[in-house]
Amino acid sequence: MSVSTIPAPKLGERLCENGFEHPKILPAIDDAHGGVIVDLNEPMDPQHFATLLRSSLLHWNLKGKHGVWIKLPINLVNLVETAVKEGFWYHHAEPSYLMLVYWIPQTGCTIPINASHRVAVAAIVLNQNKEVLVVQEKRGRFHGIGYWKLPTGVVDAGEEVFAAAIREVKEETGVDTEFVEILAFREVQNSFFGKSDLSFLCMLRPLSVEIKKQELEIEAAQWMPFEEFAVQPLTQKHEPFKYVVELCLANVEEKFYTGFSPRPVSSYFEDQLNYLYMNSNELDKSS
Amino acid sequence: MSVSTIPAPKLGERLCENGFEHPKILPAIDDAHGGVIVDLNEPMDPQHFATLLRSSLLHWNLKGKHGVWIKLPINLVNLVETAVKEGFWYHHAEPSYLMLVYWIPQTGCTIPINASHRVAVAAIVLNQNKEVLVVQEKRGRFHGIGYWKLPTGVVDAGEEVFAAAIREVKEETGVDTEFVEILAFREVQNSFFGKSDLSFLCMLRPLSVEIKKQELEIEAAQWMPFEEFAVQPLTQKHEPFKYVVELCLANVEEKFYTGFSPRPVSSYFEDQLNYLYMNSNELDKSS
Repeated sequence: MSVSTIPAPKLGERLCENGFEHPKILPAIDDAHGGVIVDLNEPMDPQHFATLLRSSLLHWNLKGKHGVWIKLPINLVNLVETAVKEGFWYHHAEPSYLMLVYWIPQTGCTIPINASHRVAVAAIVLNQNKEVLVVQEKRGRFHGIGYWKLPTGVVDAGEEVFAAAIREVKEETGVDTEFVEILAFREVQNSFFGKSDLSFLCMLRPLSVEIKKQELEIEAAQWMPFEEFAVQPLTQKHEPFKYVVELCLANVEEKFYTGFSPRPVSSYFEDQLNYLYMNSNELDKSS
Repeated sequence: MSVSTIPAPKLGERLCENGFEHPKILPAIDDAHGGVIVDLNEPMDPQHFATLLRSSLLHWNLKGKHGVWIKLPINLVNLVETAVKEGFWYHHAEPSYLMLVYWIPQTGCTIPINASHRVAVAAIVLNQNKEVLVVQEKRGRFHGIGYWKLPTGVVDAGEEVFAAAIREVKEETGVDTEFVEILAFREVQNSFFGKSDLSFLCMLRPLSVEIKKQELEIEAAQWMPFEEFAVQPLTQKHEPFKYVVELCLANVEEKFYTGFSPRPVSSYFEDQLNYLYMNSNELDKSS
């Protein structure tokens, strides 16, 4: 049902505090790129929302604004259809909200793209007995085939890659670790709904021994002699897994291979501590 | 307006081809994790959708299904409110569709998270005269301050990091390049709406000289003596930019620094060619 079939004045009048008042505009804050952000939280009648939205767009147009962002919490789902009918489209969504966007100018739209990647980690935790920490999962594509795999997991938004590797090992196996370096990474295209995964192979040093496996996702966890891990048929068959073994040996055993390690750097613009991942080993050797 | 105020039987009858027929279930395909995916394309009355959705959820529950995904193209925006009222929440959205999700079992939900990162590239293109390819943008935080910056851009979903670097240089400056390696990368947390950027510093070799700048985003582009680029106040002030200069010199001038370069690897599961980014230089030297 189109909201435009409902007579506008009636609902508009009902919601105006003053019967003679014209519709106001939506509350908005300026963004850093010449646009505005509307962060709605109060319930609203869709027809009143449509009226406000139209007058707001006229207002922002006159002000020379570019992009218009509307963040609708999921409890205001009744306003989504109205925004789309007024020309907005989806930008991104999280479980609790939907972000809609509109571009006012006639010239080319420079609305930035949505997040496109998940970032994942696979953790090599090798102890001094040359045993590697491995798990079997309760679900997923490695389930039920007897393959002992490295602990893996997804980097949360706002989390550093090295912190995610430490966290995932702790969650899945209970083992404390310190981060050493990233040995390699790869992109897996279209891993879910057209998005890609960027997966970092991380080397960590164990700080504890005892295993307490996570119940929800982990079937079994153990310290496994590295040679046994390496000769598993799937490790042999799957080229990226073969490189895990080769890079690990080159790094730990023969000590000629160095990856990227995180180095704290200040950030001029963001006022936060970042980490630059680079071949610190080579850089330091030279100076 | 809540759809539940519309009397259900009337609309239900209207849409059933056979007046005596009970509501069918929504067309769905199984996913690889014990769930189902509904990919709706045909317009539907919200009340009929609600009826179908309820009977479908009962059916999938009996079948022991876990996650239920509903992909709604933006032209079916009139069904979003209904899905949310039936207990669905947002998973992700792209300009053309919204993905909703529901978890049937009583046990812990293992719906994977949405994409959390944008992946960006910054390109160092250095010619044999020790000139670096730099630009000034028409918008953004470097606009209007006279800073000559490296060409940068965002990696599309489904695009390799190295391919994005080559594409962005070509788009912004018209210069053809070949990819050499990734010198470093960093994560910039909360760069937009709580999402993070993962930004790769890429070294490329120019294959052409003539500059044809892109009109929409680029104010100016030039080949600039590397020393001039390095002594710009912002390069000196901003720690990550100082590392750009240091790593570039270590890599090109003094030749002791190596980054990660892409190596094609087959993929056992995905039936696609992946690239593993690693310190190929060190690995090859040893063998």
